[in-house]
Parts: sequence; structure tokens; C-alpha cells
Amino acid sequence: MTINNALFETLNPPQRLLMGPGPINAYPRVHQALSNQLIGQYDPVMTEYMRQTQVLYRQVFHTQNPETLLIDGTARAGIEAVLVSILQPGDKVLIPVIGRFGHLLCEIAQRTGAEITTIDVEWGKVCDPQQIEDAIKQVKPKLLATVQGDTSTTMNQPLAEIGEICQRHDVLFYCDATASVAGNELLVDDWHLDAVSVGLQKCLGGPSGSAPLTLSPKFVEQINRRKHIEKGIRDPHHTDGIEAMIQSNYFDLPMILDYWGEERLNHHTEATSMLYAARECARLFLEEGPAKVIARHKQAGDAMAAGLQAMGLRLFGDQDYKMNNVVGVYIPDLVDGEKVRQELLTRFGIEIGTSFGPLKGRIWRIGTMGYNARQEAVLHTLAALEAVLFKHRAQIQLGTAVAAAMEYY
Amino acid sequence: MTINNALFETLNPPQRLLMGPGPINAYPRVHQALSNQLIGQYDPVMTEYMRQTQVLYRQVFHTQNPETLLIDGTARAGIEAVLVSILQPGDKVLIPVIGRFGHLLCEIAQRTGAEITTIDVEWGKVCDPQQIEDAIKQVKPKLLATVQGDTSTTMNQPLAEIGEICQRHDVLFYCDATASVAGNELLVDDWHLDAVSVGLQKCLGGPSGSAPLTLSPKFVEQINRRKHIEKGIRDPHHTDGIEAMIQSNYFDLPMILDYWGEERLNHHTEATSMLYAARECARLFLEEGPAKVIARHKQAGDAMAAGLQAMGLRLFGDQDYKMNNVVGVYIPDLVDGEKVRQELLTRFGIEIGTSFGPLKGRIWRIGTMGYNARQEAVLHTLAALEAVLFKHRAQIQLGTAVAAAMEYY
Repeated sequence: MTINNALFETLNPPQRLLMGPGPINAYPRVHQALSNQLIGQYDPVMTEYMRQTQVLYRQVFHTQNPETLLIDGTARAGIEAVLVSILQPGDKVLIPVIGRFGHLLCEIAQRTGAEITTIDVEWGKVCDPQQIEDAIKQVKPKLLATVQGDTSTTMNQPLAEIGEICQRHDVLFYCDATASVAGNELLVDDWHLDAVSVGLQKCLGGPSGSAPLTLSPKFVEQINRRKHIEKGIRDPHHTDGIEAMIQSNYFDLPMILDYWGEERLNHHTEATSMLYAARECARLFLEEGPAKVIARHKQAGDAMAAGLQAMGLRLFGDQDYKMNNVVGVYIPDLVDGEKVRQELLTRFGIEIGTSFGPLKGRIWRIGTMGYNARQEAVLHTLAALEAVLFKHRAQIQLGTAVAAAMEYY
Repeated sequence: MTINNALFETLNPPQRLLMGPGPINAYPRVHQALSNQLIGQYDPVMTEYMRQTQVLYRQVFHTQNPETLLIDGTARAGIEAVLVSILQPGDKVLIPVIGRFGHLLCEIAQRTGAEITTIDVEWGKVCDPQQIEDAIKQVKPKLLATVQGDTSTTMNQPLAEIGEICQRHDVLFYCDATASVAGNELLVDDWHLDAVSVGLQKCLGGPSGSAPLTLSPKFVEQINRRKHIEKGIRDPHHTDGIEAMIQSNYFDLPMILDYWGEERLNHHTEATSMLYAARECARLFLEEGPAKVIARHKQAGDAMAAGLQAMGLRLFGDQDYKMNNVVGVYIPDLVDGEKVRQELLTRFGIEIGTSFGPLKGRIWRIGTMGYNARQEAVLHTLAALEAVLFKHRAQIQLGTAVAAAMEYY
């Protein structure tokens, strides 16, 4: 057998300024955290780091939920852990779909055998709470699942009122806040959220690969009815839960809670380096202060939007509900959007985002997240975009974008 | 609402010598790889790194399978991706169980609705191929799933003959080689393996959190019958597979193959830092040379075993089938195994492993893996263990263990 023999070069990724919808450049301190040496998974120092990570993410989520922890996988792993642990075949779930990631919730929920009802909202708008209450009355779902910030449309779904509605109708309320957390307000307890999952690779300023998660006591009580312990490690006195086994082992939240809990019952082997990264992301957010970080995202996002508009470009979607950390902008007529993106990358080292589904080829998405939610990143991006658009003969105002953004600061 | 306000200290994990059954200390170069800055997921440099990682792992696995890639999760995520993608309710699967991780395969397979038949082997032995062939004739399974090295018993299941049997009876052959890869021979194509998944945290010398995987064309053909593309990103011309949808989105291998393939169809956001780590683990293994790395593991494992025996300790299990990289050793009479482990950790900074299930409290497991499969790690561990056992008044030979291991080198 002949196998291609190649070792390739030592890693040497180029310096990029990642101004797309995520992943973005990590904070330098997160890279430092990642480079720390490993320790054993039951080392008292490790279990203490796990406990600290839980305390830190309770603060990030504004919650007192004891069950706050990490899922070892990307943001999507957190979503699946929540949905597969709570949903059984035939359970009713209501999903407002404001963009691509709403479809993803449907996709994942569908595979549990749940009955899904969607509220389909035009891309670029958010869902009206009244519509949700009407649908809840009709469908009587077990769970309402929604995305907070959907980067596909740049919209940020308000959650407070939906939380009250769910509370009133005794419906569990889950939200995927991957793209919005740390760049937009997220008050888990005040908004009556029963489950929230996120990722590190947006405003938290870390790499993809760890999914922080928080679960309310009510949610935990329900999933624990499905608790079954592995034969290889079970205690003879253990009694199984009364409801059907969760259809995934890796995403079996009751088992994962035991691993993170006092018992430290073996499940997976915690991804130590990613835990180091997740811990540092939370420390950075809390050290700077949640209100200040969110204000910094709003300032950067508004400056970027102001600059784009000053250039004569048109923004996408209902600006009253735009996420702080990403803006959609129409590609000017007669301009090849992909060529512009490519030139920004190869000449300026700046990455901006393309789009999915109905917006494919129509808008770019420009992010200002985490480490990159700062003045120089905004100004460099606007200056570069202007230069590339000029070269592509787009009808734009010259020399105004950067000035407009600078004025904003 | 009052939330505990705490930021905790900057990460500062203690220097440990991890001589348990894994995770172990990562190679320093893997930490360097982890600290590299991020790039976008569709950056040509990133997709090239992904391609290189595929080429590297084909060499690690000794395979020509085009479909060789990473699952973003711990080793267990790789197992679940394989089993949930291939198994449908009612499918027959045969699982020889030689230890705890055999039970885990059953656990995961069970949740797909597959019909499981096990061959239960006494802990400390491996499964006789004849037994497997007999069971195959009787059960006629779609899939045979086994563990190669099971750290719970330290046994290494020979696979070549089983591969021939599976080939002869047209049974798909999957192996979880997490604990054995890179420390013991693993020839995927020569042994007719259709699917193999591993993790980084054993002999590959990286952190937990990425699961390299390889799939034969035959396996891929079967799972592709279950291919369904997400609504949010699907092309209108796409036709769905003819068989039932895979019950997990995160572990839907046909979709993950499209993400890694030419199409680069969006699925998860690749965990960039962990990909950097996985790439470096493979480079280290291939640069030193597979035969040399495996010989280094054998030498370290044999030296450790020789030292333990010279001390008068008794080894666990059939030594003819012991994995190179971990040894089980009976805890001497009247000695509290957990106290010894604790003292090794707190006084010497050395971690050795406890045990699961029927071996709990009866044996320790001592690993010599990856970066720690080296002389000084073996000698320090033996010297420290002798000192602690002496303090605990164990009946051991003094002054002989280190000498025996040194002689071995």
C-alpha cells in the first residue's frame, strides 16, 4: 500500500483581522490560557478549575442555576445536548424561526421525534411576542426554543416578554444565545429562561469547541426523569429514571451533570485545554464588566453601521432589532460580492462574511465581536472596504466612511 | 438577585507527571500549536490545514480512506458519530466486551435502537477470534464493534484475524482505538477495518477534545443512504437519501463529510485550536516514525512492568495481550490504594490511575504514554511509588525496582 508521505510545515497561520459573523480573533489572554500544561481530570486542581468555570459562567449568564457547565463540542453541541435531553418522541415544541439558526433548531429537534411547530418570520425581522402567545395557546408545547441573535439575519430577538409568556403558560423556554452572548444583554433568571447554550467563538472572544450551558432547576427536574447510568460504572444500588432513556450518550445531560457534580461520575474526559480557554473568556468578560463589554460592542457596531451608511451603502434588516455585534449590508449593484471579500482577505488580511439561503449573494455580514469590537478594527475595515469598492467601481461616497465612524467614537 | 462575584486567579496549573491511563502530559509542541492565532473557517489557509490534517491522519491510521477527519468532541464523540450514523433501529450489532469501554460501546449503540449481542470476556483477557466467528454465524450482525486497547483492563485486542472474519462474512468492522493508537500497531486497511475512531489524550500526546476518525468507502456508501441536508443551507436540486435520517445532527457523518469535502457545506464551526493540536500530534508521531514511537511505548511499558515486578508487586491480566502503554498492578494487601495515589500526587506530583467496576480498589493502572513514554518518567514513578509503599508498610523489595527498569533501557 502506498500512502502519501507528508509532514507539512510548522503551523504558521497568517495575521487576519476577522470581521465576519464569527469565529473571530481570540483575546491574546485566551491563547495564553490554551498553552497551559495539562493536569489529570480528577486532580483536585482540575475539579477546582471546573467549579470555578461554573461560578464564572453563572455570572456571565446572570443566573443562580447550580447546573451551569460546559459541553465539550462546538456551539451546536450545546444546542443538541439541550434538545435531545428534554425532547422525547411526540413532545410538542414551538420554534420561532427568524433566520438560518432557527432552521437549525428545527433540524436538531426533528431528530428527537418531537412534533415541531414553527413561526416563520421574514428574514430581517424579529418575532412578535403576541404571535408567540397565540401559538402557545394553540399548540400547548412542552418547550419553546428560539435563537437570541441570529447572525444569518443580524437580528436580535427580544426575550424578556417571551419569558413571561412561557412562565404564564408553564412552557419550558430554551434559547441558543451563541452569537449574542457577551455582546448583547442576556439575563437568564430575570427572563425566566430554563436553558441557554452558547459558544466561545463570537463575543466571548475564544476559539470554537466549547459550549457553555445553563439549566434551570425545573429543566433539570424534567431531564433527571430520564437518568440512566452506564453499566460499566454503575453502583448496584442505583435506580434508573422512570422515563425513556435519552437517545444520545454524549449529550445525556443528567450524566454530564453527575460528571460535573459532587459525584464526579466518569463520563467523557473533560477537554482540559478548551476548559482553560472557556474559563479565561469568562474572566475577561467579567473583569472588564458585562455592562462595559456590551457597551463596547454597541459602540463598535454603531460606528461600523454609521461608516457603511456614510459610504452610501444600505443596511439590511430592521435596525431597531439589530444585534450590537454584526451588521448586514447590501452588496452594491454590479459588484461581485465574493471578489470583494477575496480582495479584502488577500490584500488587507481582513475577513468579512458572506450569507446563507435567501440572502446569499445579496448581503455581506460584518462583525465587531469580542477582541475585535474596538476602534482600530472598525476603522481599518471601513478604510479597506472603501478602497476595494472603489477599485470595483461601486457607486460610493469616498472619504466619508472612516470619518463618520471616527466621529462616533 | 445576588450572584457570587468572583474572578479567580490567572491559570497556574501545577507541574504534574501524568502516569495514569490518560489524559497525560501533552508534548510541548502541542501546547505551542494550541497557542496559534485563529483564522476564519473558510479561509484558504484553514481549509488547507484541514486537508493536511486529513493527509496526516491517513498516515497515522495506515489507510487510504479519503474520509479521514476530526470530530469536534472528546474520543467518546467519535464513537457516537460512528455508531449513530451507521445503526438504525433493529440493526444487529455484535460487541465483544473485554472491559469498561466495551460496555460503553453497548451503551451508545443501545440508544440507536440497534439489537445488541455481546461476547462477555473475563476482565484481564481478550476475545478469541473463533468465538467471534461463531457469534457472527449465529447473529449475522450488520456491524462488529470492538475496542482495541481497553485501559480499564490494560488488554489489547488483536484485530487482524477479526478483520478477516468480518471481511469473509460481509460484516462492517468498527474499532475504538482511543487508548491504543500511536502506542500499539494499528493497520486500518490491512486489517479490513471499516471505521476507526480515536482521541488525542493518550499516546498521541495531546489534550482531550478532538476525535480523529477514518471511514472505509464501504462504510461511507452505507451512511450516505441516510444523507439529508439542512433546510437553512440546502440547494433546491438536492435529493435526500433513501434511508431514515440519522438521529443526531451533530454526529451526522454524511453532513460532516460534506463540511470537510470539496463542497465545504456549513455544519459546525470547526474547533480551530483543537485542529491545530490534532495536526501537531500527528506530525510528532509521523516525524519520529510510527515504528519508533510504538517501540518507545513498548520499551517504557516493559521497563515499568519489570520495575513493578522487581518490587514484588503482581501484575494484572494476561501479559501476552497487555497494551504497551498501560499496566495494571495489584494493590498490595493491607495498603489503602487511594491514600497511596494521593500521596504520590501531593508529595511527588505524580498521578497514577485508579480502576472501574470489578477492579475498583483492587488494582492501580500506570500509564507510559506519548510524551511520558520515556525513561525519566518511568524511573521517577518507580522511585516515588517505592518510597510511598515503604511508608505505608507494604511488603515490597526495596531498592530493586528502579535498577530493574534501568537495566531494561
